[in-house]
Amino acid sequence: MNKKPLILVTNDDGITAPGLRTLIEVMNTIGEVVVVAPDSPQSGMGHAITVNSTLYVEKVKIDNNPQTEYSCSGTPVDCVKLAVKQILGRRPDICVSGINHGANSSINVIYSGTMSAALEAGIEGIPAIGFSLCNYNWSADFEASKSFVKTITENVLEHGLPEGVVLNVNIPDLPKKEIKGIKVCRQAKANWEEEFTKRQNPSGRDYYWLAGKFVNLDEGEDTDEWALEHGYISLVPVQFDLTAHHYMQNLNSWNLND
Amino acid sequence: MNKKPLILVTNDDGITAPGLRTLIEVMNTIGEVVVVAPDSPQSGMGHAITVNSTLYVEKVKIDNNPQTEYSCSGTPVDCVKLAVKQILGRRPDICVSGINHGANSSINVIYSGTMSAALEAGIEGIPAIGFSLCNYNWSADFEASKSFVKTITENVLEHGLPEGVVLNVNIPDLPKKEIKGIKVCRQAKANWEEEFTKRQNPSGRDYYWLAGKFVNLDEGEDTDEWALEHGYISLVPVQFDLTAHHYMQNLNSWNLND
Repeated sequence: MNKKPLILVTNDDGITAPGLRTLIEVMNTIGEVVVVAPDSPQSGMGHAITVNSTLYVEKVKIDNNPQTEYSCSGTPVDCVKLAVKQILGRRPDICVSGINHGANSSINVIYSGTMSAALEAGIEGIPAIGFSLCNYNWSADFEASKSFVKTITENVLEHGLPEGVVLNVNIPDLPKKEIKGIKVCRQAKANWEEEFTKRQNPSGRDYYWLAGKFVNLDEGEDTDEWALEHGYISLVPVQFDLTAHHYMQNLNSWNLND
Repeated sequence: MNKKPLILVTNDDGITAPGLRTLIEVMNTIGEVVVVAPDSPQSGMGHAITVNSTLYVEKVKIDNNPQTEYSCSGTPVDCVKLAVKQILGRRPDICVSGINHGANSSINVIYSGTMSAALEAGIEGIPAIGFSLCNYNWSADFEASKSFVKTITENVLEHGLPEGVVLNVNIPDLPKKEIKGIKVCRQAKANWEEEFTKRQNPSGRDYYWLAGKFVNLDEGEDTDEWALEHGYISLVPVQFDLTAHHYMQNLNSWNLND
């Protein structure tokens, strides 16, 4: 029998988030699980790291299942760095992040702490997956996600991932029997139409709340947005070489060195 | 005579940073300048946004030059969103971010608030450039940067940038006569070898400081790291479609839907 894989689990909603607890439950059926997750919600943190402040880490016990858990004062990316460099005695075989409460499809991948944790693991050369459920509520139902999360994780453990690629998985908020399957997709072109709400604080100073409406600008049928709208789980391979290779030739025709 | 371009200026080191003041000085020679920048340093914030807190914006006057300036309590990405949706009456012709105190070459593009501000402008369809000087000191000398920053900005105003592409410019910390020119590059493969420093606070609780050593893992002569090491300014076109298109076909051979 093979040795059990070592699985690093993290998220951005914090260590008590139901989505994380579901992910731990599934990973306990696959391997040895170590959780290093933020002690408070970190949504929208993108790839933030803590450079000018201290980081606290506490070993915690939240339930009676066999995983080992650490709660960390930092961002999701800090959690991965601390786990790999300080907490885990050996290199994890895989890093899974999530299950996020809310979609990280299309352009949201850029703002997502869940995906940044997965990307950070990828930068460290660890196969990594970010999972998100398209339901922002704390009371979202993660039941239907379980078997798909398990299938995708086992596939990554079996096939590996090439250097520089991590997976972004989004799961539609549907009962299991209505989910049509897993679809390999590209990131849809989309953006947020922000509308700031302007208010006054009790001292009379203006302040703003960021609010906005997500707009899919991409009519392609090969995108993550299309898949989710049509009842599929979207699986997008994501890279962290951001070079727009296709535009390098063009830039070389500019007058930069006259 | 053409109408002067409207230039949005931001950064991640904060509104009083010498790098930002230099960028404003150069932009005042090109167009009408509006600054919306963080009221305090935001290094390492990546693409973080403020979702669960309030945002304050104050009109400020820092010197007697002709730009208009706003100081914002949020992240660099918040600054761009507020500028475009709330502060500027019309769409800016270009957004420039920086000049960052410290390199944002290779994998640092992922952690960089400077580049995230530029990427956010790009997502909004605004041509955008992030500038960084390879010197972390507050007292760094930005003199040599000026003419190159001007040349690159004027080229972008002349040629535009295709949808989905922004520019990442890094400037070596050298006197002007030693800078060999501007080189179009790809992002080098590199990572940080973190070493966490473990200490105890006065109450006896352990905490960590994130520290690390940058390691270039890429021997290519077409990378930003190579250019900087050899006295060139690196210019990398950066995209925010993170899809690893080359790996989609491979994923479709996995057993995901059995």
